[in-house]
Amino acid sequence: MNAPIYAGLLSFFVAVLLGPSTISFLRRLKFGQHIRSAGPKAHLGKAGTPTMGGVLIVFAAVVATLVFAEPGSGTALRLILVTLAFALIGLVDDFIIVVRKRSLGLRARSKLAAQLVIAAWIALYALNTPGLGPEVIVPFTGDAWELSPLLFFLLCVVAVAGTANAANFTDGLDGLAAGTSAIACIIYTVIALRAGQPDAAVFAAAVAGACLGFAWFNAHPAQVFMGDTGALALGGAIGALAVLTRTQLALPIIVSIFLVEILSVMIQVPYFRLTKGKRIFKMTPIHHHFEESGWAETKIVVRFWLLAAVSGVIGLLSLA
Amino acid sequence: MNAPIYAGLLSFFVAVLLGPSTISFLRRLKFGQHIRSAGPKAHLGKAGTPTMGGVLIVFAAVVATLVFAEPGSGTALRLILVTLAFALIGLVDDFIIVVRKRSLGLRARSKLAAQLVIAAWIALYALNTPGLGPEVIVPFTGDAWELSPLLFFLLCVVAVAGTANAANFTDGLDGLAAGTSAIACIIYTVIALRAGQPDAAVFAAAVAGACLGFAWFNAHPAQVFMGDTGALALGGAIGALAVLTRTQLALPIIVSIFLVEILSVMIQVPYFRLTKGKRIFKMTPIHHHFEESGWAETKIVVRFWLLAAVSGVIGLLSLA
Repeated sequence: MNAPIYAGLLSFFVAVLLGPSTISFLRRLKFGQHIRSAGPKAHLGKAGTPTMGGVLIVFAAVVATLVFAEPGSGTALRLILVTLAFALIGLVDDFIIVVRKRSLGLRARSKLAAQLVIAAWIALYALNTPGLGPEVIVPFTGDAWELSPLLFFLLCVVAVAGTANAANFTDGLDGLAAGTSAIACIIYTVIALRAGQPDAAVFAAAVAGACLGFAWFNAHPAQVFMGDTGALALGGAIGALAVLTRTQLALPIIVSIFLVEILSVMIQVPYFRLTKGKRIFKMTPIHHHFEESGWAETKIVVRFWLLAAVSGVIGLLSLA
Repeated sequence: MNAPIYAGLLSFFVAVLLGPSTISFLRRLKFGQHIRSAGPKAHLGKAGTPTMGGVLIVFAAVVATLVFAEPGSGTALRLILVTLAFALIGLVDDFIIVVRKRSLGLRARSKLAAQLVIAAWIALYALNTPGLGPEVIVPFTGDAWELSPLLFFLLCVVAVAGTANAANFTDGLDGLAAGTSAIACIIYTVIALRAGQPDAAVFAAAVAGACLGFAWFNAHPAQVFMGDTGALALGGAIGALAVLTRTQLALPIIVSIFLVEILSVMIQVPYFRLTKGKRIFKMTPIHHHFEESGWAETKIVVRFWLLAAVSGVIGLLSLA
């Protein structure tokens, strides 16, 4: 029962203690973030801040999970594998961005294909594991539905790959993705414990602690960004936690900020094309809309954290 | 078991929804904060921000407690009374500061006397209640000590009045006191539930939710400050929670930020006098030391929140 707490504390301290050397290493390699020229003007000052800080989050989370999960736990290993695989996609992407000095890295299609392969792997595992697939818990009903294998498979793939991409869209203000991911993982620690999955709880707490340790440096004004390395890894990890706790349908509530961020883009872009230039939001992802509306970056971030906490708690209630 | 969660959600939404009207009311009354001239230069820009926002926290917390605690619960009523009494002391103090346009309000001696009376009241109650006084839990031992009545009484008084004053010293950066108090109250929600005190848990969660709702406006750049009204009420409430859960000795761990803040002042001032002008910290309370050392206000606040969360969790472990 206390193992997740220990895991969270360990990953927090690993991230805080290794932060300074990681940051100066990334800076020496000139892995500074290229700031997209179409983004808010205020963000141009962020150019040169090292990115790929996600390696710190992933390292701290993996170490703490390995220390505090049952030795040889299949659940822990699967969660770690998904996280590492998404981190690797992000790392390649961040690397291309840095080397080519442009803000868009891997070609969208190959990036998505790689994500779908990982998501399909965990989806197939869940489908073939008694007690997981093809059942999902229905929020607010205390009930579970048995889906057709195909529908269950697709739901799992969307949960994992969708959350990874949504986390990536969320990662655009100092501390935003780290804080909202930490909150989602704290909620998943409780969900996993209640679901009788102590190793998933250890992993969730380890990821939460790692995010909070990373926030020590990523808080405004950020000394480091997590990059796609961090955002894809975190989103993939949270999606995988949903699959392994049968909470795919509660996931949109728990990661409501991620959802709103990706939806803002999915609404804005087609609308802009259809209307030949009209916009619903001043800028997307939606955190930029509030920036353009005059909210201070720090206030947007704290308010999104608060909304993440509230919706996380509601997600927890929906499963009680 | 879910009542504390509901209470926290309700107080959060009450604070967020009543925030704008409360802020414009305080602004109309010209209850702007006077910024002490000896403080950091960067804080002069904060002059005119309305203070006494603590009324919003206290109102939201009291409403949510009354809604979700057992009707007629003595525990809930005692906690509410302590909170209101400390808020009243703070209110008078804030009022004098505003009217007289100086940064120090009530005379220190009368303020302390009033605080000691309230603290003594709750201490006497605990002393005469079987299951509470004169026993305290010893952290990290799983054991409890029976103290002499006098020692127990003094410990309770120090826990309540000390925490109130420590919270007041902590209240000096945007979001700092609100965030650290919210964290302490979340920890106390768990402690109270474990101690079989559901009404204390409802109160603690209600205070946490109210602090988080207040943070919606108090996050940097702050639109409102809590003032002594808020800081004394929060500190008093947390101290009273410690008394009613026999966790007076774990309290310094749980509110470690408050402790460090008040200790920094208690060390600096006599040292300055003894050495005729030497300082240990560049400025106290200690959050100003880091500001003067070049840390951004927002980064100090997030780091203190993180330390509060870590020490809160350690405090929780110390009682498990």
